[in-house]
Amino acid sequence: VAISLLALDVPFTHRPVSVFRGFDEFSRINPVVKAPTAVLDDGTVLMDSSLILQYAEAEAAPGTLWPGAPADLARSLRTVGLALAACEKTAQIVYERGLRPAEKVHAPWLDRVTGQLRAAYAELERDLAAQPLAAESCAALGQAGITAAVAWHFTQQRVPGTVALQAHPRLAALSAAAEALPEFRAAPYGEGTVAAQ
Amino acid sequence: VAISLLALDVPFTHRPVSVFRGFDEFSRINPVVKAPTAVLDDGTVLMDSSLILQYAEAEAAPGTLWPGAPADLARSLRTVGLALAACEKTAQIVYERGLRPAEKVHAPWLDRVTGQLRAAYAELERDLAAQPLAAESCAALGQAGITAAVAWHFTQQRVPGTVALQAHPRLAALSAAAEALPEFRAAPYGEGTVAAQ
Repeated sequence: VAISLLALDVPFTHRPVSVFRGFDEFSRINPVVKAPTAVLDDGTVLMDSSLILQYAEAEAAPGTLWPGAPADLARSLRTVGLALAACEKTAQIVYERGLRPAEKVHAPWLDRVTGQLRAAYAELERDLAAQPLAAESCAALGQAGITAAVAWHFTQQRVPGTVALQAHPRLAALSAAAEALPEFRAAPYGEGTVAAQ
Repeated sequence: VAISLLALDVPFTHRPVSVFRGFDEFSRINPVVKAPTAVLDDGTVLMDSSLILQYAEAEAAPGTLWPGAPADLARSLRTVGLALAACEKTAQIVYERGLRPAEKVHAPWLDRVTGQLRAAYAELERDLAAQPLAAESCAALGQAGITAAVAWHFTQQRVPGTVALQAHPRLAALSAAAEALPEFRAAPYGEGTVAAQ
């Protein structure tokens, strides 16, 4: 969301509050404790990355990160759906491994979501082979390329070794190129406050 | 998604394939096995309810289920975000209880997501008290009212007794009124094929 807002030139301040270590602090901003959460200028509290960006695109930004032609829009929505699914499955693996004692970890569940995670990246890699995404700017990446690049980086950071780098050369190259862009460098994965005015 | 497509007058056929019992069948349609999945006329496979409806609103429908005024859009996006979070937390409870042996169930995780679920519905009920949603038609409900009504029904069906009916009279009334609408009756929760041409 931060990278898209930067690409859309929407002013914001990002405060990194953990939904685990910062649960109480987060709950005072949004009782549902759901990241990302956006607090609008009038105090309205939004959650869900797609919905926050829907607001930004509709109200705050003169531009858009979505293509206009129907077939291009469909392909971009497909890419974002695959990338969001990959992020969800990554988080489910992190939660299963990290948020319960070892004797409560259920291996068939880990197998299921790991299989879904790999399927999502296999689809993304195949789509990129059929139709490459340009990565020379966030405008060229669009929301599809931004979300795919962020998802790949997130998965590699949080569950390294789970999705093989060598089987996904196009995703790895997309992510590497994206991470070098100014918006990605300004809003790096992890801790730290990002502000754009 | 089915109710919104009916309200938008977008033709579709709904096939209820379980992501558990129908895993293999589902994986042949979408290897990520993510419901809902939409197969467009040209074969493009989309997933994620918000993204599928973004396509429908952009390309397939002359109308919209979102308000135009910025403050109204923000409130609707907030409602949908809360309702989607409630659905996610409901699913997490169902999965924790139903997809692993009793000795693998982790009570602190159930407590965490149950608290988040109740927080989401407390916020929705408070929002409805401040600004009621009209329920005489799907057009009046908009995407906000449709998602809130569907979420409440889903939670009450899947984890009955978890979110108290008497503490949420406005949500209960909204859901009851919505379930009587033609689009809700045409696409009931549970099994069964829905087709609209």
